[in-house]
Amino acid sequence: MTAFDSLMAFQHETEALAQVAGRLGWDQETVMPRGAAAQRAEEIGALEAVLHARRTDPRVGDWLSAIDDAALDPVGAAKMRHIRRSYARAVKLPETLSAALARVTSRAQGIWAEARAADDVGHFLPVLEEVLRLKREEAAALADGGDLYDALLDDYEPGATAAEIGAMFDRMRTRLVMLRERIMGAGRDPARLSGQFPEEGQLRLAHEAATRFGYDWRHGRLDKAVHPFSSGSGTDVRITTRVDERDPFNCLYSTIHEVGHGCYEQGIDPAYLLTPLGAGVSMGVHESQSRIYENQLGRSRPFTGWLFGRMQSIFGDAGAADAEAFYAAVNRVHSGYIRTEADEVHYNLHIMMRFDLERQLIAGTLGAADLEEAWNTRFEHDFGVAVDRPSNGVLQDVHWSVGLFGYFPTYTLGNVYAGCLNLALHSALPDLDAALAKGDTGAATGWLREHVQRHGGFHEPKAVIEQACGFEPNEVPLLDYLDAKFNALYHL
Amino acid sequence: MTAFDSLMAFQHETEALAQVAGRLGWDQETVMPRGAAAQRAEEIGALEAVLHARRTDPRVGDWLSAIDDAALDPVGAAKMRHIRRSYARAVKLPETLSAALARVTSRAQGIWAEARAADDVGHFLPVLEEVLRLKREEAAALADGGDLYDALLDDYEPGATAAEIGAMFDRMRTRLVMLRERIMGAGRDPARLSGQFPEEGQLRLAHEAATRFGYDWRHGRLDKAVHPFSSGSGTDVRITTRVDERDPFNCLYSTIHEVGHGCYEQGIDPAYLLTPLGAGVSMGVHESQSRIYENQLGRSRPFTGWLFGRMQSIFGDAGAADAEAFYAAVNRVHSGYIRTEADEVHYNLHIMMRFDLERQLIAGTLGAADLEEAWNTRFEHDFGVAVDRPSNGVLQDVHWSVGLFGYFPTYTLGNVYAGCLNLALHSALPDLDAALAKGDTGAATGWLREHVQRHGGFHEPKAVIEQACGFEPNEVPLLDYLDAKFNALYHL
Repeated sequence: MTAFDSLMAFQHETEALAQVAGRLGWDQETVMPRGAAAQRAEEIGALEAVLHARRTDPRVGDWLSAIDDAALDPVGAAKMRHIRRSYARAVKLPETLSAALARVTSRAQGIWAEARAADDVGHFLPVLEEVLRLKREEAAALADGGDLYDALLDDYEPGATAAEIGAMFDRMRTRLVMLRERIMGAGRDPARLSGQFPEEGQLRLAHEAATRFGYDWRHGRLDKAVHPFSSGSGTDVRITTRVDERDPFNCLYSTIHEVGHGCYEQGIDPAYLLTPLGAGVSMGVHESQSRIYENQLGRSRPFTGWLFGRMQSIFGDAGAADAEAFYAAVNRVHSGYIRTEADEVHYNLHIMMRFDLERQLIAGTLGAADLEEAWNTRFEHDFGVAVDRPSNGVLQDVHWSVGLFGYFPTYTLGNVYAGCLNLALHSALPDLDAALAKGDTGAATGWLREHVQRHGGFHEPKAVIEQACGFEPNEVPLLDYLDAKFNALYHL
Repeated sequence: MTAFDSLMAFQHETEALAQVAGRLGWDQETVMPRGAAAQRAEEIGALEAVLHARRTDPRVGDWLSAIDDAALDPVGAAKMRHIRRSYARAVKLPETLSAALARVTSRAQGIWAEARAADDVGHFLPVLEEVLRLKREEAAALADGGDLYDALLDDYEPGATAAEIGAMFDRMRTRLVMLRERIMGAGRDPARLSGQFPEEGQLRLAHEAATRFGYDWRHGRLDKAVHPFSSGSGTDVRITTRVDERDPFNCLYSTIHEVGHGCYEQGIDPAYLLTPLGAGVSMGVHESQSRIYENQLGRSRPFTGWLFGRMQSIFGDAGAADAEAFYAAVNRVHSGYIRTEADEVHYNLHIMMRFDLERQLIAGTLGAADLEEAWNTRFEHDFGVAVDRPSNGVLQDVHWSVGLFGYFPTYTLGNVYAGCLNLALHSALPDLDAALAKGDTGAATGWLREHVQRHGGFHEPKAVIEQACGFEPNEVPLLDYLDAKFNALYHL
């Protein structure tokens, strides 16, 4: 066997084991017996130790030295790009640091949950400081003297930099705040849905929507989870949702969102199965798929028209007077505290403040002790409302407790990419709205599969979006889309 | 760290990974998307390769050489007994042979399923010959010049020998055949249940029965599977069942059977979690728990009396005129073709013929090509009925296709052990029948937990039964129990 063949065979097993680790996570959040948590932590720890050993295996270093990427075909070269990158990161991290991070973040997540339930920031602070110290140490080990935050960001969005993202966010903020203020000043507040929507019907509708959006049930399944997520790559890609009988949009749009993630994974070229190209290429590109499914398609006027009819037929009453009122309820703008409940206008403002705060935390210019005050000040400034309690403020997200610094901006990057793809999609498919009005998303999801999803990890993140759209990704299409949609909806 | 501590830490991770492998199996049989089978095979293969490498890791050999078992406490010494045994077996097997067996049996299982569906023995023969050749090779590698069949049997029932089991089976056969003939000649054929029993009610009853038998839902769950099984050790022990709306006993007694397996695992001393003592000690002892739950307790007259009332209340009609007719339906003796559907009288006759045939296959005195004829001749002799087609005969069981030679006798060993435990149980608990009549199995399952289950792998298989019963395990209590029960039931 050549060094390349040996490395690929080794990598194939590593990818298979990584899928197993993902499945353990799915199991834990959906079907695991309550009393199995401690044992599961041991199981995950043992499997992660195996994965860590493989990712830093000296044989990988030897194979990498022996391989001349220039002599490979483009697919081989793309695989090497991922493996080289991952190996370079892995060997920079001392094993003691990785183990300490795993231990501390596992503990921190539990403490965060307690602190959030008790609205007690002080309970969370000591362990947050510990997480932060370790993450800064990790960033320093990875950064080679470069920017600490970029070193963390690179794990979720290869090639992105905080400077570039920060500049884009600054350009976005002005227009978003203006739009927000126009809407808030318009004196219209569309009614929410009224009524009770039984779980069985919601799950039936979620199942139907997933099918319409092209989710492949032969290679997936839908379960309930406290926090919806998608999981797995290749031929086993599972999604989850949750049900609130008074708010059917929770289940429906969580499902469509996760279907976007799931279809990305399911849509990847089967030739890439269990290779470094066999998964979504970055968090930002992943989020572009979930967002365009959920928002630009799922919350569009034509699609909600179809949905209104389905809701009437399933529940007897869709909870709104007519399709127009239903569309307004789906897209109701409201400056709430919680990121995950935010509308399309506010969502990115939530992200931008987290991005700025976590950059300061990693840079060391903001200490954990001052985080709550910084959060509250910034929130009131951006949203015009004072935070009423920590669980509605700095304690709302799990991310920092588990060490996910550098992850937040990929949500907005996903929205920006979705804006670009939406523009390209509509110019490629002039009859799209007519199809959506019939609940037919086939042309749109087919286009996304062909131009984005099937490539998996072949292209760099930004490149796959640029190639699909025919222009360099930027924030303008998203902002134009939001202005047009909400100007019309709020008669601005 | 001492060699012992190092070995225990290493073993702890191996046990955790083995639990993960078990969970993948559970997932595959219960919730896995249909189209994920090929990927799952890769995942299981990768994890098995990791486990194999750990089981034969040269460091284990070094630690084993450095440890003086005589200096350990009894628990430490018992752990060493398992690890030494498992390492000695593992290093005897060439990796190429293990890999070939994994590959061939995976293929053979698929071919067997096709052959069974088509009633085509010829389709199965070539791959069966291949499996058999590899298993004989494996046995030769393990046997060190000793008996080939014993080397395979030892994997499922440490310490047992085919000679000892064969002699016991010969003693059993005469009395079983006599009992069978008395019953068949009695001219009574109790009615089966009549009626339709909706799935929802069956699952509710299965859930209730599991709870009554002490199954711990905090550390387990019940799902549907094509072939019911139990899975997992420690704090995550899952069981499965199946539903036939015309035969509620299928679901109910499958559940109680798996609850017996599950309670054994759940009942093991928590101090043994993720150690070699943290799982049932052998297949025979495991089966003793599932069988005593299912048969000696679950199919007893007092317990079926309680069950009759529950069936009436859940389904409106229990499908039998009265409790006595219900008890007779539960224990109806019928000489069918299929082992898994056999009553208590016939079951062991099914096992004995498989045991004799597979001993000859492994010894090389019977070839795969002659197996069907040997099966059919023996079946007609023992059961008085000619096999009508291969799926009711030689193709009915999955075992040989997946290389499980030496496994079958542990089913009857389990029945024999259950007979012994049942005798001890009734003399320890004179009021047991009165409790069972109220659906209360607490005293019985408590006794089994205390005397058998909690020990996990601490004692050798036979020793744990002997210690629980106060006498050397033998077949007489089972045969006496069967005679007494069926003489009364059939008025013999």
